[in-house]
Amino acid sequence: MNGAESLLRTLVHGGVEVCFMNPGTSEMQFVAAVDRVAGMRCVLGLQEGVVSGAADGYARMTNKPAATLLHLGPGLANALANFHNARRARVPIVNIIGEHATYHRQYDPPLHSDIAGLAATVSGWVTTVEDSAQVPALTHAAIRAANGPPGQIATLIIPADCTWAESALPVTLPVIPPVPVAIDQQAIDIAAKTLMSGEPAALIVQGRALLEEGLMLASRIRGKTGARILCDCFVPRLQRGAGRAALEIIPYFVESALQLLQELKHVILVGAKPPVGFFAYPGLPNRLLPPGCQVQTLSQPGEDAITVLQQLLEATGAGITDSDRQPLQRPPLPSGDLTPLTIAQSIAALMPEHAIIADETITSGLGLLAATTHAPPHDWLFNCGGSLGQGLPVATGAAVACPERKVLSLEADGSGMYTLQALWTQARESLAVTTVIYANRQYRILNIEHQRIGAGPPGSKARDMMSLERPDMDWVKLAQGLGVPAKRVNTAEEFNQTLKSFLGEPGPNLIEAII
Amino acid sequence: MNGAESLLRTLVHGGVEVCFMNPGTSEMQFVAAVDRVAGMRCVLGLQEGVVSGAADGYARMTNKPAATLLHLGPGLANALANFHNARRARVPIVNIIGEHATYHRQYDPPLHSDIAGLAATVSGWVTTVEDSAQVPALTHAAIRAANGPPGQIATLIIPADCTWAESALPVTLPVIPPVPVAIDQQAIDIAAKTLMSGEPAALIVQGRALLEEGLMLASRIRGKTGARILCDCFVPRLQRGAGRAALEIIPYFVESALQLLQELKHVILVGAKPPVGFFAYPGLPNRLLPPGCQVQTLSQPGEDAITVLQQLLEATGAGITDSDRQPLQRPPLPSGDLTPLTIAQSIAALMPEHAIIADETITSGLGLLAATTHAPPHDWLFNCGGSLGQGLPVATGAAVACPERKVLSLEADGSGMYTLQALWTQARESLAVTTVIYANRQYRILNIEHQRIGAGPPGSKARDMMSLERPDMDWVKLAQGLGVPAKRVNTAEEFNQTLKSFLGEPGPNLIEAII
Repeated sequence: MNGAESLLRTLVHGGVEVCFMNPGTSEMQFVAAVDRVAGMRCVLGLQEGVVSGAADGYARMTNKPAATLLHLGPGLANALANFHNARRARVPIVNIIGEHATYHRQYDPPLHSDIAGLAATVSGWVTTVEDSAQVPALTHAAIRAANGPPGQIATLIIPADCTWAESALPVTLPVIPPVPVAIDQQAIDIAAKTLMSGEPAALIVQGRALLEEGLMLASRIRGKTGARILCDCFVPRLQRGAGRAALEIIPYFVESALQLLQELKHVILVGAKPPVGFFAYPGLPNRLLPPGCQVQTLSQPGEDAITVLQQLLEATGAGITDSDRQPLQRPPLPSGDLTPLTIAQSIAALMPEHAIIADETITSGLGLLAATTHAPPHDWLFNCGGSLGQGLPVATGAAVACPERKVLSLEADGSGMYTLQALWTQARESLAVTTVIYANRQYRILNIEHQRIGAGPPGSKARDMMSLERPDMDWVKLAQGLGVPAKRVNTAEEFNQTLKSFLGEPGPNLIEAII
Repeated sequence: MNGAESLLRTLVHGGVEVCFMNPGTSEMQFVAAVDRVAGMRCVLGLQEGVVSGAADGYARMTNKPAATLLHLGPGLANALANFHNARRARVPIVNIIGEHATYHRQYDPPLHSDIAGLAATVSGWVTTVEDSAQVPALTHAAIRAANGPPGQIATLIIPADCTWAESALPVTLPVIPPVPVAIDQQAIDIAAKTLMSGEPAALIVQGRALLEEGLMLASRIRGKTGARILCDCFVPRLQRGAGRAALEIIPYFVESALQLLQELKHVILVGAKPPVGFFAYPGLPNRLLPPGCQVQTLSQPGEDAITVLQQLLEATGAGITDSDRQPLQRPPLPSGDLTPLTIAQSIAALMPEHAIIADETITSGLGLLAATTHAPPHDWLFNCGGSLGQGLPVATGAAVACPERKVLSLEADGSGMYTLQALWTQARESLAVTTVIYANRQYRILNIEHQRIGAGPPGSKARDMMSLERPDMDWVKLAQGLGVPAKRVNTAEEFNQTLKSFLGEPGPNLIEAII
């Protein structure tokens, strides 16, 4: 059995069921092997940012790694921006990168580059195979590393000769997750005492604490202690809507965040870090908690947030406190002008139960979260790393992960352009994704940030660098060109009708909303 | 004057006239400054691969650097694949990357990453500004570093606070290129003797030796000594066609390259390296020169190839030998089926004088070079690094550099998809680019490489990973969606008619050739 086949069989035994890929010559042995090994779904992306973003979306919904297969340094380079986001989301990914044959690298052929150096910027684990016999053991180690906890990108670099040479038999052992570290009971007691003190306090939660069970525990602690529950402005996956407990999201704009947090005297961190501004601005602080606010870190990202919250709940004596569940309450369908607010209302009115929302709306998302608080239960996926172009790929991966659910991919026209190739993969795989493009035809966030730097109104050349006009993009044609049915809408009524109709179809499809 | 303005003024004084960009919040001071400083043309790309590839194309045609302006690590990451190609083309680029404020990095905000680590993989020079007062001196140093020789990517990382704080006055000194190192006359004499020996010998040339003047010198040496003239299969810029001297290009496929080179006893390298295979294959050598072939390196890439060739010409006593100039001879217009060969014939029949050909045709380029040997004089730009997705951006940058010339962007449908956003920039800047998409709806090179690895015919899953069908892409809609007029053609006659008509228009435009 050659190295490629042993690699593939070890992946399948290790629970990796999907490989998002954009292979090249160095990865042909892997591609040749996929028909010899059952159990691996192969999904092609036409640009590597689609591949890495889809693996991120898949992992967020399944909590397990997909594999990615990429071609040498440049293939990895194209994937890095969405790997950056995936790293910030702490998801598991087994990232396989082809490399020149071990004896060919020394000649510095045209495609040679520092793959390990590139991979190190996003990976928690990077290893290069040097002998085909190592392939299965290192593949197994990569899966284990990817799973964490916390989840991380594990990059395995495989020279071409290690894929075509005879290798060792695949590793068939399951990948056993390590036992989470026990939480110090004394720390729990201190935190409980703080929350019960009556002083303004908040829990800032991350990771699994943002799923239904964790939020229920947190909300019972809130019911007993009066502490607020907060999370960072962009988190990997938030379960929300009717039947779930609500929490406060720290706003993106520093001024608003400072205002929201200004009364706090105590903060307890569960898998989170003390909040900081996304960017620094002249004259504004970069730490968002008020001076003098006491911070206690109760658990790290890799630790078991659910157990921590259970222990904290017990320590506060909140055993019989009810959680506060949001009621189901849909708004009426909007009418009139198409704006971010009427789109939000329409989505809240029409979104199906257990929808997955991949949100890269940037400035156009205004009002979306507020409008959907009482919508049917759903999952919200944010852009955790701030690198634009993750929305369409993450939606793609989430749809691969959850074929029985609808994915609503809410995307700004500027950020959507970085990785629009994802639409083709959605069409090829017949994924249940309805994309809404918020077409404001500008980098509106940059117009806002330009105002904030105090340089006065932008001149004509500066305006040009923030405008997406001249020419207007036509997202209907772009989607159709990639095999996805699409429609342009200009009013709230048209939007309502099109969204309802598109959600009733198997998908994918796309609405260009002119706002 | 703040750091951003001092940076911009130093760039303009240093001869940098164009900035390709995709800025973000950290770069807003630079964007705000562009209206206050005359002399910098700003060109927006909707994805950073467009930005880096355009800077490459611009530099190949002008032999001077453009600036690139990118947003933090992820913005740089998206640009890396085409920077990889630019590094292999040895072009000068001044690469400006925004960074978080110096005092903000320590908090590891979401967009924080190892920018210098990423930049090091493609740059010959990387420096991070730590104080706004350093901005002009470091910018000047970056221009000097970019210019080389040889040209290279010089990356300057600028924290946001160094752009908004008061800085030093701009550097107004011109950037003086260093004097090239003199070539050892003894080495020249040895090389001349080798070439005159009567044994099978070749010059392998690179860099400026591939432009008209260098090729004329080389061809006169060939006329006197009988030595062959060769170049690598993918070079940055080759001047060819009527009135120019021809040379032999070493083929991509190893078997063909070995055959072409098998008789050689001596090779003289002028700015080139000994040729190696693009990839390694089981059972094939990776060095392409026959065993026992003597290799003499006469000059390095940074050295003055023209002077070297002049000295070599003198040393061979070839002072009065004529160069061999290709005659002008266009083929007749083809008819019938549309194939790579009929497309090549049509292009040779219709291409205007001094056209610039950006070639990323991969397998569809078969016959193109042969058909155009006697076409009117033109420049051919190859993909030097092998990272796909450089064709449309390089064509864009070449058109910005040479507004008086026509650019023919010959692109495979698979590789075109990596950076199709370049078409939007072509439309916005009204660039004279006619794109031909060779739509074979597959990664044909991978189908060929799959055959070559000896794994038997591909199974259905493997075929799927090399196919661009299901759904077919519609390049007419994609181009129109990005503001570029487009037409699909199915026969040689339609191709002739459309190419003639599109070349007569100011551009840009696009032909989807179904082959």
